Amino acid sequence: MSAARRTRARGPIVLALPENARLASALARRLGVPRGGRVVRRFPDGETYVRVRTPVRGRDVVLVCTLDRPDERTLPALLLAATVRDLAARSVGLVAPYLAYLRQDARFAPGEGVTSTYFARLVSSAVDWVVTVDPHLHRHHTLDAVYAIPARALTAAPRIAAWIARHVERPLVLGPDAESAQWAEAVASARGLPRVILEKVRRGDRDVGISAPDLARWRGRTPVLVDDIISTARTMIATVRQLRRARLAPPVCIGVHAVFAAGAYDELCAAGVARVVTCNTIAHASNAIDVADVLATGVRQLLRAPRRRRG
Amino acid sequence: MSAARRTRARGPIVLALPENARLASALARRLGVPRGGRVVRRFPDGETYVRVRTPVRGRDVVLVCTLDRPDERTLPALLLAATVRDLAARSVGLVAPYLAYLRQDARFAPGEGVTSTYFARLVSSAVDWVVTVDPHLHRHHTLDAVYAIPARALTAAPRIAAWIARHVERPLVLGPDAESAQWAEAVASARGLPRVILEKVRRGDRDVGISAPDLARWRGRTPVLVDDIISTARTMIATVRQLRRARLAPPVCIGVHAVFAAGAYDELCAAGVARVVTCNTIAHASNAIDVADVLATGVRQLLRAPRRRRG
Repeated sequence: MSAARRTRARGPIVLALPENARLASALARRLGVPRGGRVVRRFPDGETYVRVRTPVRGRDVVLVCTLDRPDERTLPALLLAATVRDLAARSVGLVAPYLAYLRQDARFAPGEGVTSTYFARLVSSAVDWVVTVDPHLHRHHTLDAVYAIPARALTAAPRIAAWIARHVERPLVLGPDAESAQWAEAVASARGLPRVILEKVRRGDRDVGISAPDLARWRGRTPVLVDDIISTARTMIATVRQLRRARLAPPVCIGVHAVFAAGAYDELCAAGVARVVTCNTIAHASNAIDVADVLATGVRQLLRAPRRRRG
Repeated sequence: MSAARRTRARGPIVLALPENARLASALARRLGVPRGGRVVRRFPDGETYVRVRTPVRGRDVVLVCTLDRPDERTLPALLLAATVRDLAARSVGLVAPYLAYLRQDARFAPGEGVTSTYFARLVSSAVDWVVTVDPHLHRHHTLDAVYAIPARALTAAPRIAAWIARHVERPLVLGPDAESAQWAEAVASARGLPRVILEKVRRGDRDVGISAPDLARWRGRTPVLVDDIISTARTMIATVRQLRRARLAPPVCIGVHAVFAAGAYDELCAAGVARVVTCNTIAHASNAIDVADVLATGVRQLLRAPRRRRG
């Protein structure tokens, strides 16, 4: 075997978990590395079968597995990572465009599990590094506070801002509440767009209102709601209603991560919006903003980082 | 606090994962220890919330979580175990009446994951011991070959034999194939019942037949098919048909573990059986044989074993 061929055979390789094939292919193209073959399927008894079809010995392996519905997705990802290590890969990293279990990052009531720590520990024991997009960090400011392994959090904000600039006339970026402020601010700043952060008003257990300071003066603008995760869509729907009461144009709703609890997407679409748009961190009909480039940037940094040998 | 009270407060406690409450209560009664309170629920975004409501500091905690549908059940169990450790329990053990991921215990084709090893490693890192009933051991003869922590495999065979003695007149125990032989033999031996081990004949990819050596001479008997796991029920249904062709009485079908892939239970019931009976290792309509006592025996042995301190 020539030296050139040997070098090529040892280059990085991308492996996708099921439902991640499309983004994995886009990522592999951006990185200029091949996608490896693998079989990951479920037996009738509910167990997962894993087989890696491309040689990985001595290679850096990039697993792609987004982690919405984490309780069913995590074990197959851990089993594929263990297989890759068992097959003597040089390293194995995880690209989780959506990274789960970041909300419960403290014990708010006695006896609660700090699942963010436990989940990170599990992932950290299975892979050498992790890359994600816009993780829901709140009390912790960086992933390093949670993950023991090298972890890169990229942001889709410039991509979202570019999409808005291309598709929305006279946009007004709106953050529906204080928690969404960081995402709305980042998107607006990336293109110098005007922005307003609204305030959630809790009138009762199930009655969420949005305070609307002085919205009338923005009537000539197209409202663009921005948040990181759209899950039940409660906050976004309440905001859409408030905007309609203030007689603004139907808003564009943008979420980085299309988590969408059952029925939530249809409800949001029916609430009087111009359009619902998400990034392709979780495959969904609303995906319109591609983050493959963003992920590739993070992966390149980590593949270049010096290898930590496992004990 | 009196010495007696302090001792009581430090006694073992049983915690159940969702869908395991009934068996956990039966087990706690047999052990003479309380069941602890806990909240394990799923957020709309698919993450699991965990809270332990009974103090566990300094106590031995017995988690009960059967592991059919393992890909969705395992993460919540690991998170509850981590919470219990985080709350400074003295030890945490896992009672998994059905223990998953024991089939893929070798690499049969290049690149395959040896998921049985990886899964055991995951469980071994999360709990101090494991107790199960009739694990599907094949190439490995004991759980210790797979699990790094103390592991007890109990058998339901005497319970199954007792059930047959009480409910079936003139039983003939039948093992549908070589793999089921160990379960059928154990059940028959426990009460000195006659037994026949049949042989699976694979006529094609989807055509499974059962060779029936000299079945006619058993016509006065009630056939009792015994296997450890009923999943797709293919083998059992093929056997039932063979018995009917040999004009034996409709058989009783007994499985230790009611895994039942979608539709399998109804198909088996419709195949011309007298009754389908399982142990309560997995909650199912067919449960008729209680293994709480069997599990309690294993748990008592492990709670008595000297504590290994974690590093």
